[in-house]
Amino acid sequence: MKVLSVNAGSSSLKFKLYEMPEGKDLISGNFERIGIDNSFYTIKINGEKTKKELSIPNHKVAFTILVEELINNNIVNSLEEIKGIGHRIVQGGDYFNKTVIIDEQVVAKIEEFSSLAPLHNPAAITGLRAAQEVIPNAIQTAVFDTAFHQTMKVEQFLYGLPYEWYTKYKARRYGAHGTSHKYVSERINEILGRQDTKTIICHIGNGASISAVENGKCINTSMGLTPNAGLIMGTRCGDIDATIIPYIMDKTGLSIAEVTNIMNKESGLLGISGISSDSRDIEDGIKDGNERCVLAQKMYVRRIIDYIAKYYFEMNGVDAIVFTAGIGENSPLTRAQVIEGLEVMGIKLNGEANNSRSREVKITSEDSKIPCYVIPTDEEIMIAKDTFELI
Amino acid sequence: MKVLSVNAGSSSLKFKLYEMPEGKDLISGNFERIGIDNSFYTIKINGEKTKKELSIPNHKVAFTILVEELINNNIVNSLEEIKGIGHRIVQGGDYFNKTVIIDEQVVAKIEEFSSLAPLHNPAAITGLRAAQEVIPNAIQTAVFDTAFHQTMKVEQFLYGLPYEWYTKYKARRYGAHGTSHKYVSERINEILGRQDTKTIICHIGNGASISAVENGKCINTSMGLTPNAGLIMGTRCGDIDATIIPYIMDKTGLSIAEVTNIMNKESGLLGISGISSDSRDIEDGIKDGNERCVLAQKMYVRRIIDYIAKYYFEMNGVDAIVFTAGIGENSPLTRAQVIEGLEVMGIKLNGEANNSRSREVKITSEDSKIPCYVIPTDEEIMIAKDTFELI
Repeated sequence: MKVLSVNAGSSSLKFKLYEMPEGKDLISGNFERIGIDNSFYTIKINGEKTKKELSIPNHKVAFTILVEELINNNIVNSLEEIKGIGHRIVQGGDYFNKTVIIDEQVVAKIEEFSSLAPLHNPAAITGLRAAQEVIPNAIQTAVFDTAFHQTMKVEQFLYGLPYEWYTKYKARRYGAHGTSHKYVSERINEILGRQDTKTIICHIGNGASISAVENGKCINTSMGLTPNAGLIMGTRCGDIDATIIPYIMDKTGLSIAEVTNIMNKESGLLGISGISSDSRDIEDGIKDGNERCVLAQKMYVRRIIDYIAKYYFEMNGVDAIVFTAGIGENSPLTRAQVIEGLEVMGIKLNGEANNSRSREVKITSEDSKIPCYVIPTDEEIMIAKDTFELI
Repeated sequence: MKVLSVNAGSSSLKFKLYEMPEGKDLISGNFERIGIDNSFYTIKINGEKTKKELSIPNHKVAFTILVEELINNNIVNSLEEIKGIGHRIVQGGDYFNKTVIIDEQVVAKIEEFSSLAPLHNPAAITGLRAAQEVIPNAIQTAVFDTAFHQTMKVEQFLYGLPYEWYTKYKARRYGAHGTSHKYVSERINEILGRQDTKTIICHIGNGASISAVENGKCINTSMGLTPNAGLIMGTRCGDIDATIIPYIMDKTGLSIAEVTNIMNKESGLLGISGISSDSRDIEDGIKDGNERCVLAQKMYVRRIIDYIAKYYFEMNGVDAIVFTAGIGENSPLTRAQVIEGLEVMGIKLNGEANNSRSREVKITSEDSKIPCYVIPTDEEIMIAKDTFELI
């Protein structure tokens, strides 16, 4: 059975088609600059990537092109073969705690939570509406980035703010990257060979979050009401003293929208280093002796250690720590520095094993009290799996 | 030699007179509602407290009354006997890393840092000006709440924000309660019998902060640019996702000043419980089965554990953990719950020893891997000591 995994942004559409339940990747691609000048798309079949430039005025056109490509490349003979389409939805609020089949009530709820993810949820709705029009017979599902974190207890998801801000305005911690945290936490349990585990999952990419997972259930996570909280990220500041916002507004005359925009798009590694949001550039800067890059990396690593420390205490122990996502999978330096900061737990690096990229590997030595792993994440297959199971 | 320790607020003036270097407390008291209706003051001599109601239009009048009381009660024969006056100053920015003798340049600097402590620094200047007028021959010193934290490294005091916000606007972590953290960290080193220690000082009062102290020097602290960061407090929220500010403004129509005011004055224990900012009321609520009080206490305790965890990792170990200030000294329940959360460190409570208030005591059992103590803080004597040493 063929299942499509879809991630729609306001001007983009990423997709991957799987043969399920095998999980074989048949075709993947990305439509970019939808509704903007110079739009184009890329597709990848059997490792071969092609790029085509043409006008893509909206998501419906993107889906129509996608379907043509599937047929022209003999991946499907007819649309009827696509039985399911799973849509990644950033914000499911406190309503969705698992993947669901999309109906009008579900769409209304996704819309309701748009104020919590103003850039993402409306785009996802645009994407799923387009999919419904172009591939009407497929069962469509909504896979929420927040769903995995819905097992947090109230004392973990609440802030020290007036309780009414929670009951009236739903101001609470939601977390993000839930599909990735779920995928990786299931995989680490397979490796450990049991389900009654305590694990800490470090999803360290351009966006980044850490989750504490006990017995397969998320008990805490570093992102908050929005993805701007927690770790220092590529361009996001992560945790700060919130009263910096009025302070900077007062000092600079910037509006709150401008300040929060800077906190999201010009902070983090970029803001500290002044050079780049890309951890590879920061590492190059460190090699060149750039002090601001050294500083950015120190702060970046320390914040990761802070959260591991916190969750280690909160779970009263941990069976494994896992690194995943762009930096987690591809930066031996960052992993080594984090693990150096975990010495008090009796964790010891295996430098040779750590010197690898994008593959599943244990990176601690045999005498390390707690093992650490790299597990490449795969949100797309998780979306396809969830969708397949619902069908 | 007689030294006066002074803490001036915008409408209050706390004082304590010491015979130094013995540190004998001769008289103490508090002027309240200065410049407001129904002003009054209390004084305490030899444990006997008296209250007098009268008009106190300004801080100069308060100092004049104070001097009259000293003479009338035969504590001093003349003003000349008061050799030093130490003033508590909340914010010394990145300029003051120790107690200094006040001159006009110092006053100008304190004024400069007023934007970082708009309620406190101007009040302190009012207080020290009044003291200069009324007791002109005493040497006046400025004792900064932030000075002890000035040993933090840049990677500890910086936020993941644009670097220019630090260089241009001095947006960084300053911390607070430094005089208390210094006093308690010196005392724990006396108890441990050495200076090369790693200690975590939990100053848990209505305001609350935790510091990591290595070899007598602060290496990190939980308060930030302002005292609103870090722990959940009586009425302050502590760490939150900063983007809650624009979210709540958008949902409620409140101004940023109103939202930050609520974050400072209607949040924390008060905001969560909906009942009180006073931890004693929260404990009563818990006994009565009030769920919101149970929740507030859980969150309050967890945040303390979070910071202990973080600093334990950051120092790669710890020799002792100390509780001080209102709740730290007087709440066996809070201490017991925090210590329960430190089980992963091998810390074990001595329930009997913990069942005490306002006295120096070790509260962990003999087989606890790391000892925890209660040490009553004394910011006033620290101010007097610093002042005495400068004279």
